[in-house]
Amino acid sequence: MRIPRAIQDLIASFEKLPGIGPKTAQRLTFYLLHVPQENLENFAQSLENLKKNTILCSICKNIGETDPCWVCSDSSRDKKTIMVVEQPLDLLALERTRRFKGVYHVLHGAINPLDNIGPDEIFITQLTVRVRDLIEEGNIELILATNPTMEGEATAMYIRRQLEGLNGDQNKLTLTRLGVGLPTGADLEYADENTLTQAIEGRKVF
Amino acid sequence: MRIPRAIQDLIASFEKLPGIGPKTAQRLTFYLLHVPQENLENFAQSLENLKKNTILCSICKNIGETDPCWVCSDSSRDKKTIMVVEQPLDLLALERTRRFKGVYHVLHGAINPLDNIGPDEIFITQLTVRVRDLIEEGNIELILATNPTMEGEATAMYIRRQLEGLNGDQNKLTLTRLGVGLPTGADLEYADENTLTQAIEGRKVF
Repeated sequence: MRIPRAIQDLIASFEKLPGIGPKTAQRLTFYLLHVPQENLENFAQSLENLKKNTILCSICKNIGETDPCWVCSDSSRDKKTIMVVEQPLDLLALERTRRFKGVYHVLHGAINPLDNIGPDEIFITQLTVRVRDLIEEGNIELILATNPTMEGEATAMYIRRQLEGLNGDQNKLTLTRLGVGLPTGADLEYADENTLTQAIEGRKVF
Repeated sequence: MRIPRAIQDLIASFEKLPGIGPKTAQRLTFYLLHVPQENLENFAQSLENLKKNTILCSICKNIGETDPCWVCSDSSRDKKTIMVVEQPLDLLALERTRRFKGVYHVLHGAINPLDNIGPDEIFITQLTVRVRDLIEEGNIELILATNPTMEGEATAMYIRRQLEGLNGDQNKLTLTRLGVGLPTGADLEYADENTLTQAIEGRKVF
């Protein structure tokens, strides 16, 4: 059985993507054989330009077309409230709520010893430097919006420990974490124990 | 919320692929932002070369690097037994069994009125021409291995009707269809009615 080299190469490229197994990679590749060459070239162009035409914001590490990014350069944003997220996609999800008027800090990951991701692999040092500079000018709030997973919690705890020294006795730095509990539309029957425990602990007057 | 153009473009390209929704397209694109530029360029190159470096076999319409393809040019293959399949991937699946020593005919689809795919959109005419030429030289068997779906059955029936005239009273053409029934490892409890009906009808002496 001989699969043409050109097909094997594309299958291999697809297989490297997260969540795409050998079967899906094959299916996608054979699908693309029926697509006009022009579309394939557009796709190829988009891949080549992805990193060339984007830039990491020097302030918040968000991915954008300009530096500083569109959030950091927006003068109506409250620069003293920083939401710390794991990924640029988390930032986009939070922006869709239109509720947050502060700025962000994108870590580009979470501490995960199993995947060999330590504090130095993500933008934690840059965060502490940023916080140290801002704290000179007044009170700030840091919302630790890493995911409510093992890795996200560990990252939030690590950041808290790193910043403890900065706070001193003036309490100029407030650290918060996003609310936890049942998501909208959830079914109690299927909620896991942790979520239910947190929902009970976080109950509010109705 | 402003997503960089380069990111939007790649998300759009991914979204066009079958089975990839907006969320997955976003996830794949943001994943690729963390990949070395070299890998992106290899991926782009594979896309560009996919159709340039492959060719449709003029005999069986299989996709390969040569014309005729590696199956049609293999002299040990029985050219009088033709397996008619919908897609090149079906051919690969059948080849993995190492049981079939005949040749193929790849239709590149099945008749599907809902998707505007009629008999002229797939390689049926080419099949009838091929059969007509072969029948001059002796008996042939055509295994209609289109999928056991509505579209696959319709295609098999259409092909049978097209070939009826050719057979004449000499019965030089044998039409067969792949066996149907329970797949290996199946659980009767979860098998659908059609499969069970066909398994009962197709029962064998044990």
